[in-house]
Amino acid sequence: MSVLNEVLAANAAYAADFGEKGALALPPARGFAILTCMDARLDPAKYAGLAEGDAHVIRNAGGRASDDAIRSLVISYKLLGTREWFVVHHTNCGMEFFTDDVMRGLLASSFETAELRPDGFHDVGAEPGSAEAQYIDWLTISDQARSVTDDVRRIKSHPLVPARIPVYGYVYDVATGRLVEVPEATAAGAAA
Amino acid sequence: MSVLNEVLAANAAYAADFGEKGALALPPARGFAILTCMDARLDPAKYAGLAEGDAHVIRNAGGRASDDAIRSLVISYKLLGTREWFVVHHTNCGMEFFTDDVMRGLLASSFETAELRPDGFHDVGAEPGSAEAQYIDWLTISDQARSVTDDVRRIKSHPLVPARIPVYGYVYDVATGRLVEVPEATAAGAAA
Repeated sequence: MSVLNEVLAANAAYAADFGEKGALALPPARGFAILTCMDARLDPAKYAGLAEGDAHVIRNAGGRASDDAIRSLVISYKLLGTREWFVVHHTNCGMEFFTDDVMRGLLASSFETAELRPDGFHDVGAEPGSAEAQYIDWLTISDQARSVTDDVRRIKSHPLVPARIPVYGYVYDVATGRLVEVPEATAAGAAA
Repeated sequence: MSVLNEVLAANAAYAADFGEKGALALPPARGFAILTCMDARLDPAKYAGLAEGDAHVIRNAGGRASDDAIRSLVISYKLLGTREWFVVHHTNCGMEFFTDDVMRGLLASSFETAELRPDGFHDVGAEPGSAEAQYIDWLTISDQARSVTDDVRRIKSHPLVPARIPVYGYVYDVATGRLVEVPEATAAGAAA
């Protein structure tokens, strides 16, 4: 069965037992938002105990405080009333294993190697290379505690973010499922 | 109990029963990615049937194909081997209920009204206004089928996206839990 058919079958089963969820309100019931990584091993609803309707979840490669993540957070508070935010990066993140130069080199060349590399990465693509990657900041990570702290600071210093919103900084450990606080980040994210 | 303590308590319970999940590999086991909205009512793991380790999940306000979402998708395929992508917007999305001008006006003024407005939106903030909002494209939506199709087209035409990746376009119905295909989007997203 293809991925598409698997997803549609799972969705039909979910919708068949949808219950009262169709009546949930638009604003997050518990008034908070989580910014975290797209990593497949992370399920924020599970690791943070969210039911449908509870909280906004923003995800990108690394869980970084990109301009787009900040766009989403500002909408989250200004239109939909969230008043506490979490930034959650994680151990063994793919963003730690390359640099802008590596990504630019990979995307500028053309190759096809479907097998997994020793470092766990696929390296795929038969299309002609493109220099476009040189114009993108890939937002790689060299140290998780540092990246969480940097991102909390960027969010807190953004002119559209109210000082009274606390931003908590955590690293999710993919080996244990635990959220580990980054005290420096949480201190930087304290409500004023 | 504060939100922070609730989240940490839920996380402790999750980690206490983590089982074999600590051994999951970094690349998504089922080789696909979903781009969807941050909306609190959406749980992509539930609506698409994902276990931890299965698929990348990218979320922002609207589920839009922003530059940052495309950064994440390119990393998803190039380093971590995903080969099929979904774009999933949804009914009753907050992004349908305002425009760039409205958002810019809200953020340029200073006010504090904690109560919910008749249209379901909070309108909060006592900080001084900022003109910064004029420099942000808020990526609002006027029609979901159109926004899904536009976003699939933007992804497919990006110079770093291989033509052989199919991109499926869907609208999630928050009243029923069902994924409804946008045929024009899926056609635009067909693998070449």
